[in-house]
Amino acid sequence: MEIKSSTVKEILERYKTIWALNHASGVLGWDREVYMPEEGIGGRSLAAAEIAKLIQKLMLDESFVKLIDKAKEERDLTDDERGIIRMLERDLKFYRRVPPEIVAEFAKTTSEAFVAWRTAKEKADFKIFAPYLERIVELTRVIADKLGYDEHPYDALLDLYEEGLTSRDVDSIFSVLEPGIRRLLGRLEARGWPRSHPLEEEPYDRQSMEAAIREVLGLIGYPQRRFRLDVSPHPFTTGLASPFDVRITVRYPPRDFREPLFSAIHEFGHALYELQIDESYAFTPIGTGVSLGVHESQSRFWENIVGRSRGFTAHIAPILRRHLPFLSKYSDDDLYYYFNIVRPSLIRTEADEVTYNLHILLRYRLERLMVAGEVKVADLPALWNDEMEKLLGIRPKNDAEGVLQDIHWSHGSIGYFPTYTLGNVIAAQIRHAFGTLEEAVAAGRFAEIKEWLREKIHRWGAVYPPKELVRRATGETYNPTYLLNYLENKYK
Amino acid sequence: MEIKSSTVKEILERYKTIWALNHASGVLGWDREVYMPEEGIGGRSLAAAEIAKLIQKLMLDESFVKLIDKAKEERDLTDDERGIIRMLERDLKFYRRVPPEIVAEFAKTTSEAFVAWRTAKEKADFKIFAPYLERIVELTRVIADKLGYDEHPYDALLDLYEEGLTSRDVDSIFSVLEPGIRRLLGRLEARGWPRSHPLEEEPYDRQSMEAAIREVLGLIGYPQRRFRLDVSPHPFTTGLASPFDVRITVRYPPRDFREPLFSAIHEFGHALYELQIDESYAFTPIGTGVSLGVHESQSRFWENIVGRSRGFTAHIAPILRRHLPFLSKYSDDDLYYYFNIVRPSLIRTEADEVTYNLHILLRYRLERLMVAGEVKVADLPALWNDEMEKLLGIRPKNDAEGVLQDIHWSHGSIGYFPTYTLGNVIAAQIRHAFGTLEEAVAAGRFAEIKEWLREKIHRWGAVYPPKELVRRATGETYNPTYLLNYLENKYK
Repeated sequence: MEIKSSTVKEILERYKTIWALNHASGVLGWDREVYMPEEGIGGRSLAAAEIAKLIQKLMLDESFVKLIDKAKEERDLTDDERGIIRMLERDLKFYRRVPPEIVAEFAKTTSEAFVAWRTAKEKADFKIFAPYLERIVELTRVIADKLGYDEHPYDALLDLYEEGLTSRDVDSIFSVLEPGIRRLLGRLEARGWPRSHPLEEEPYDRQSMEAAIREVLGLIGYPQRRFRLDVSPHPFTTGLASPFDVRITVRYPPRDFREPLFSAIHEFGHALYELQIDESYAFTPIGTGVSLGVHESQSRFWENIVGRSRGFTAHIAPILRRHLPFLSKYSDDDLYYYFNIVRPSLIRTEADEVTYNLHILLRYRLERLMVAGEVKVADLPALWNDEMEKLLGIRPKNDAEGVLQDIHWSHGSIGYFPTYTLGNVIAAQIRHAFGTLEEAVAAGRFAEIKEWLREKIHRWGAVYPPKELVRRATGETYNPTYLLNYLENKYK
Repeated sequence: MEIKSSTVKEILERYKTIWALNHASGVLGWDREVYMPEEGIGGRSLAAAEIAKLIQKLMLDESFVKLIDKAKEERDLTDDERGIIRMLERDLKFYRRVPPEIVAEFAKTTSEAFVAWRTAKEKADFKIFAPYLERIVELTRVIADKLGYDEHPYDALLDLYEEGLTSRDVDSIFSVLEPGIRRLLGRLEARGWPRSHPLEEEPYDRQSMEAAIREVLGLIGYPQRRFRLDVSPHPFTTGLASPFDVRITVRYPPRDFREPLFSAIHEFGHALYELQIDESYAFTPIGTGVSLGVHESQSRFWENIVGRSRGFTAHIAPILRRHLPFLSKYSDDDLYYYFNIVRPSLIRTEADEVTYNLHILLRYRLERLMVAGEVKVADLPALWNDEMEKLLGIRPKNDAEGVLQDIHWSHGSIGYFPTYTLGNVIAAQIRHAFGTLEEAVAAGRFAEIKEWLREKIHRWGAVYPPKELVRRATGETYNPTYLLNYLENKYK
């Protein structure tokens, strides 16, 4: 890290306290999902809320803000210094523009909304969740207005998750992806959709599966003394703004070993990003992945482009057969086929890499309408089902497998979904920029692939805004044609 | 909780932030010992130090201190309110009197001293540790002077760990215990010390042992949704100033199942205290065990007085035999004997309940001399060995099994050891006050015992200072004769 400005030095010194609170929040969140006894939840929520308030207070501390304002005016800042100021200003912008009462009400609403959503999903009844979603949309709109935007209020929300991303960017991505994917799906449909596969119903031993996962991750290579693999209801990665302690979780549903296998590889992609950030950025605002989209590019790159490739299948097939004896009758080709079954399905999280982005397109369209006030919340279920039928030719039988399937809206995360597709787009750009990726994978040259990612993306942490990082790494900004080419080539 | 004063209400409202930081520190500490990847230590130490500084800053915030000063002057405070103010003032006293530079230097010194102690112990060479201990003693003496005391600087240190405890109290306890225990040991020695027992070298299966422990704890009864049992290098209990999330750890050395069994019961005693504190005290300064001594009375009560009793052995023997098949040839009486072998030994943590307090007496004497400057650090090893020979008739062969055996001094914890003996003393007072304890244990009336402890001790959290709590629970203050009677009766 290159720090020359004494103002920035002072900022970093003071930032340590904020870093410590972020670190604590991260560990508290990880613990809540993984090991906390059930009844600890009340105290944990109180602690999380208090710490969030304290972070806001420390960020808005007048003397700290003054330092940031002062540093901003300085000339000849290094890239690292500019990155630090940029990241702090992003947080400051939110804290300054969105009044704490709104933040508090949003937190209260979403925590109630989450409970309502869970019940609504269980009962497949959108009406239970609707009033909460209405309130969330109202508050989200208020937040978007407070934050400000040039063209569409949705842009203010996109920027929260992906710095600088606009509806124009997303529209331009989907304007290529939608027709291309639908064309590809048309060709696949002509051959007939594959039937259900026996392995989808095959139970597996959980301990053996975990052993297999550890071996698969070991094949790619990770620093054991900086990494953990645990179990939680939903897989996730915890980075703590330092490359010295990064943790992933998976879950083990009773059947279909693909889920834990590919979620582990997916989360490993996230983890590797955090693990390979320049060590000198640790405990600073730039010691973290720069955005959700770039993060997702890393997880999708490893999960899909590497993980579901023919070459990778050949590497892991012997490991899987050793730990899961029921696989002995399946060849490498059988497994490769099984890992890459494409068919329209209702649930996003179970979707293959071809149809996946249409699930996102559906959500993107609905979110924009919601935020613009152009659709009533009450009309969402029907709209969802109509869009699903248009995009994928299938129609949910109920709200649980339709509009209620995702947790995101109950959390108030509107503007988040597009980062999933952006991740897929960037992952394919990386594949192209790397050059002969499939050959490197087939040859097991994982160290080389990791080094490329480290040098081009990971090490930079949050120094550069996402668009600039992608341009530096791949030579161009978001370009969805590589994703389309990759998919067409793989599924031809 | 009875809160009438609006000032105290405001204090509690503001205290929530401090509670949250304490909660975070607790979870960070737990995670560090139990699950944190090794290389996370640098960041974790930074976070812990920053959070400690922040707690101090929030405590010393002028407006917060004013509230406390104001509340102190109010009349008609309830017991709960007085407890809250008393606990806050204890912290304030330390923060106000001990300059932050001293605290910082102490933290730096002890963190280096810990590393030196570990090496010194490995090499059984006190000289490696001596310069660090010298500096720790100096700083400790400064802290004692800053804190202030009436008779002996050691009293200022005792009070840090056990509110109100003085050298006079400790002297008075040992003036009864030392001759009594030596008399008892004399009688036991006359019969000859028992030889080594085959179970001491017997390996056990770790999974089976854990299953046995869970069953033994289940027999006593604990709230599963508020409790965790994990593994760490040294057993400990984590309370988070709320009864909703309490965690213990044990370790599983390769041989001798007694260690994990009785450490689990010991830690369970600590946990039960925290678990049974009045729920309305959660997230306040009184929602925690009041002192180390009272805490230790709970762990020793369950470990020794209940756990090593003949009646309890009869309850757990079938569980142990089921999980540890090598016990099938041992009768209940064999196990009872094995759980209660008394013989002089060099290592405190392995000592039986008779000799244990002489190990503490040795440390108490040395610590008082150190703090008073009446012994040179360089002379400690010889002094230790001489004292050991006087008290227990055995002499360490090297420093590792003598003066270097405990971690405490390297942590800067001088004045801590006496709380162990105080815990034993209070535990025996509780046994006496309960009345027919051995009958209740034999009859498996654990709910009744727990309810007694809850009503007399646990529920009160830190409302009353330790001496007052003990007086309320047992009808008198510290009285070591019950411990002596218990030991004489058990080992006659």
